[in-house]
Amino acid sequence: MHFLLKFASLVLAVSVCHGWLFGDFVGKQKELDEISLWPLPQKFQSSAVAFKLSPARFQIVHAKESSAGPSCSLLENAFRRYFDYMFGELKKHEKSRKKAFDSDLVELKVWITAADPECDGYPSLQTDESYELSVDEPSAVLKAANVWGALRGLETFSQLVYEDDYGVNNINKTVISDFPRFAHRGILLDSSRHFLPLKVILANLEAMAMNKFNVFHWHIVDDPSFPYMSRTFPELSQKGAFHPFTHVYTPSDVKMVIEFARMRGIRVIPEFDTPGHTESWGNGMKDLLTPCYSGSTPSGTFGPVNPILNSSYEFMAQFFKEISTVFPDAYIHLGGDEVDFNCWKSNPDVQKFMEQQGFGTDYSKLESFYIQRLLDIVAATKKGYMVWQEVFDNGVKLKADTQIHVWKARPQYQDEMAQVTAAGFSVLLSTPWYLNRISYGQDWVNIYKADPQNFTGTDAQKKLVIGGEACLWGEYVDATNLTPRLWPRASAVAERLWSDKSVTDVSNAYNRLAQHRCRMVKRGIPAEPLFVGHCRHEYKGL
Amino acid sequence: MHFLLKFASLVLAVSVCHGWLFGDFVGKQKELDEISLWPLPQKFQSSAVAFKLSPARFQIVHAKESSAGPSCSLLENAFRRYFDYMFGELKKHEKSRKKAFDSDLVELKVWITAADPECDGYPSLQTDESYELSVDEPSAVLKAANVWGALRGLETFSQLVYEDDYGVNNINKTVISDFPRFAHRGILLDSSRHFLPLKVILANLEAMAMNKFNVFHWHIVDDPSFPYMSRTFPELSQKGAFHPFTHVYTPSDVKMVIEFARMRGIRVIPEFDTPGHTESWGNGMKDLLTPCYSGSTPSGTFGPVNPILNSSYEFMAQFFKEISTVFPDAYIHLGGDEVDFNCWKSNPDVQKFMEQQGFGTDYSKLESFYIQRLLDIVAATKKGYMVWQEVFDNGVKLKADTQIHVWKARPQYQDEMAQVTAAGFSVLLSTPWYLNRISYGQDWVNIYKADPQNFTGTDAQKKLVIGGEACLWGEYVDATNLTPRLWPRASAVAERLWSDKSVTDVSNAYNRLAQHRCRMVKRGIPAEPLFVGHCRHEYKGL
Repeated sequence: MHFLLKFASLVLAVSVCHGWLFGDFVGKQKELDEISLWPLPQKFQSSAVAFKLSPARFQIVHAKESSAGPSCSLLENAFRRYFDYMFGELKKHEKSRKKAFDSDLVELKVWITAADPECDGYPSLQTDESYELSVDEPSAVLKAANVWGALRGLETFSQLVYEDDYGVNNINKTVISDFPRFAHRGILLDSSRHFLPLKVILANLEAMAMNKFNVFHWHIVDDPSFPYMSRTFPELSQKGAFHPFTHVYTPSDVKMVIEFARMRGIRVIPEFDTPGHTESWGNGMKDLLTPCYSGSTPSGTFGPVNPILNSSYEFMAQFFKEISTVFPDAYIHLGGDEVDFNCWKSNPDVQKFMEQQGFGTDYSKLESFYIQRLLDIVAATKKGYMVWQEVFDNGVKLKADTQIHVWKARPQYQDEMAQVTAAGFSVLLSTPWYLNRISYGQDWVNIYKADPQNFTGTDAQKKLVIGGEACLWGEYVDATNLTPRLWPRASAVAERLWSDKSVTDVSNAYNRLAQHRCRMVKRGIPAEPLFVGHCRHEYKGL
Repeated sequence: MHFLLKFASLVLAVSVCHGWLFGDFVGKQKELDEISLWPLPQKFQSSAVAFKLSPARFQIVHAKESSAGPSCSLLENAFRRYFDYMFGELKKHEKSRKKAFDSDLVELKVWITAADPECDGYPSLQTDESYELSVDEPSAVLKAANVWGALRGLETFSQLVYEDDYGVNNINKTVISDFPRFAHRGILLDSSRHFLPLKVILANLEAMAMNKFNVFHWHIVDDPSFPYMSRTFPELSQKGAFHPFTHVYTPSDVKMVIEFARMRGIRVIPEFDTPGHTESWGNGMKDLLTPCYSGSTPSGTFGPVNPILNSSYEFMAQFFKEISTVFPDAYIHLGGDEVDFNCWKSNPDVQKFMEQQGFGTDYSKLESFYIQRLLDIVAATKKGYMVWQEVFDNGVKLKADTQIHVWKARPQYQDEMAQVTAAGFSVLLSTPWYLNRISYGQDWVNIYKADPQNFTGTDAQKKLVIGGEACLWGEYVDATNLTPRLWPRASAVAERLWSDKSVTDVSNAYNRLAQHRCRMVKRGIPAEPLFVGHCRHEYKGL
């Protein structure tokens, strides 16, 4: 009951009502309960009039007017995928020649309006993901400028479909006009602290698409292991991975991840974090790391990348040249967080270099020295870059299009957001969305309540917020527990970054999210429960 | 390095040294690293002398002197299971006719010494789980009074086997004499707050056997749902389960759980918690629950079991008669926790009854009235009973063999353990082992440090501690996340309850447990990682 009223009022609040049968909602409560859109579209009108979908007759087709056709394999794949999601095991029905009933919805026409549908392109920060969806007899129409908006609309269409008591798929007469609030809506996965098998990454890309996420931030290497197989420097993974064959990503694996993501409108942004977090790099690249000293002799351990050797920059130039061709996205994440100065301080050659450069004992100047040279190297590859907030905090000179990634909890992240945007830089937020940090109970609520524009600043500053990322660092997760730990908690971030700022009602969100997680489970994603209850189709795995 | 030294000193500490080549350990570090017994046996000696095991030649056989033979299907099944665990995919090798090499271990002889091996019996609180294991050329010998000790010894034998760099299975010359510290080592799973599919329960029984747990406490029904299908009262699940067909345990399901557990030396103790936690019972059993009042009229909601009606006790007598035949164990858990008095207080008939009985306004007297009648009913079925601590705290008259289950954190559980044992009752502990309560980081350490005998009391009181249980309540877990949330955190409880009180070194435990969790993963259990790292055989599921 509670849900129905909330939902109806929400619909009224965010849409313009012209003659739709809201009054009929009461008799249709059950069906409306089952319409659990996640994330909630920007503008949404639904009527009590329902159509039936027959797996033997229903089709997803290219509209006559569309600039895309059967040669657009991205869309063809998406049609098949969403048909599977909607009809599941029923899909093997043979096509029926019987005439459709009047109450049937027989097709969804997908109409790409731009001259270039971008079938073979990659999504980008500038991608238009908006779409218009109209469900009416005898056809539904999904209209989008290009394939990227169509992908988002297909997900929404599939979420409108619900099973009635006979197991028949229904969909209500609906009009939706939708677009994302933020352009960058990401998930960070860490494949260094534990190796993540390819199929875990792919399954999570699928779940991302179900939640309209559009960036996979691949924190691919770090101190513990270097699973990225480099063509230029194969020893990096041969000596730096947990195992040189079973625990690496080959060039084909990486290609597959990028293509699988592209088909779902997801950008893949790799992170190669330097000069800290590089312990595993040292195994396969002699002299790259700084030798730490104990008194006047080398201790045998190594610190961050050695910033005083030209060879370090020559290596980085070659390495990032490779990375810039392997990963098609316009951005690379360069890390730059948590540089520990102790090893640099212990090393007499570094001390001498500090003197020569006139840095005194301010090692953040040395860090800046390194980072500025690295940024120049990466800029030469024509890529843009993202960096963790320390790089900004330490006053490194940055290109105007640099994106600053805010992650620290102290001092308040709101202050950092204000400072970064006051300096004119684009910013994205992760601080409240470190999903590796678990606690008992419904922690999705606080995840849901955080808003990246909730800081003191001008409208111009707010516009510099390009979005955020949910981060699942790998200390305590691997293939055994990653997926249920991420979902549906990351879904809370998905709605915050897609839906209107005003969509904040937690009890309404609870009802939709509980159903959305059951939908993910039905589609094979082991998303964990929000609270006591059950799904019609429970998880079939272990 | 660290691990080697710790391990060697531990071995010295718990075993008597007579001429074993401890000096050779240094050269054998790798192999010893791989010997990761969990839980640690009581007495253990290992030598650097290693034997090889060939899947084409190695056999597990009944010793000539054994009272058990090929007709003992419990052991035959266990032989096959442990052969599979040890050789995995190699098992399909054809038998080799080649003569064994001198360095081979060709067989493990299992020798049951008691006249009755108990092949078709059930384990009980009195079961002797001790065993003696000797690994030497050409045969290893496992000696136990009956099948229950043999099962524990087979698990230990399989844990001694490790792969060398060629993938060949090795085992070191070893002598073990082992027995559990506590007789009751349990896991509570809750199938009411979320339904747990049969295969999830069975997989966790397998994991329990890998950790030498011997009690499955099945919290089968509760407020949210009643999945137990009763023959006597089928409406209880028809109307009280989340779904009458897909979310119930049929009599065959229950039988299968009991048999699967028996084959692994695990008792199944069902909990039917009354008079509170019974909301779901009311759907299928009219007048069982107390109608709550709002002022002078029934509010339409219901409270605990109605303690003033004879029909309630007649129902319980029939119901527990069925339960006592379905579940072979000598004990039933009767719950008795968290009775909310508000509904009873609101009901005028209950008020009148309180007056008649002279209970005044002390509703705990009414609770005791109910529980005492229930205990008499269950005692008539010849079953013993376990109850949550409130039943003791409220001064209910109890049979001498009642087991009190301590779960509350306030006041200190140590005080409760002292009071219960001072009153002469057997007690088991769960307070520090509520594994549903998750937190960030290595929370297994505190789980591991808790000791059920760590309270102020006499030796006689300490002897009344029969063990403990790890509890995984179901608010936030179902098939999607239960198994990785439970393992290896529950393994920490397993060692506390099996191994000697002196086994408390956390860094030694970390090393063994990290390897033990990889062993569980290799055997198909998605046990989550303790911290950064990898397994040789990673989890293959999602």
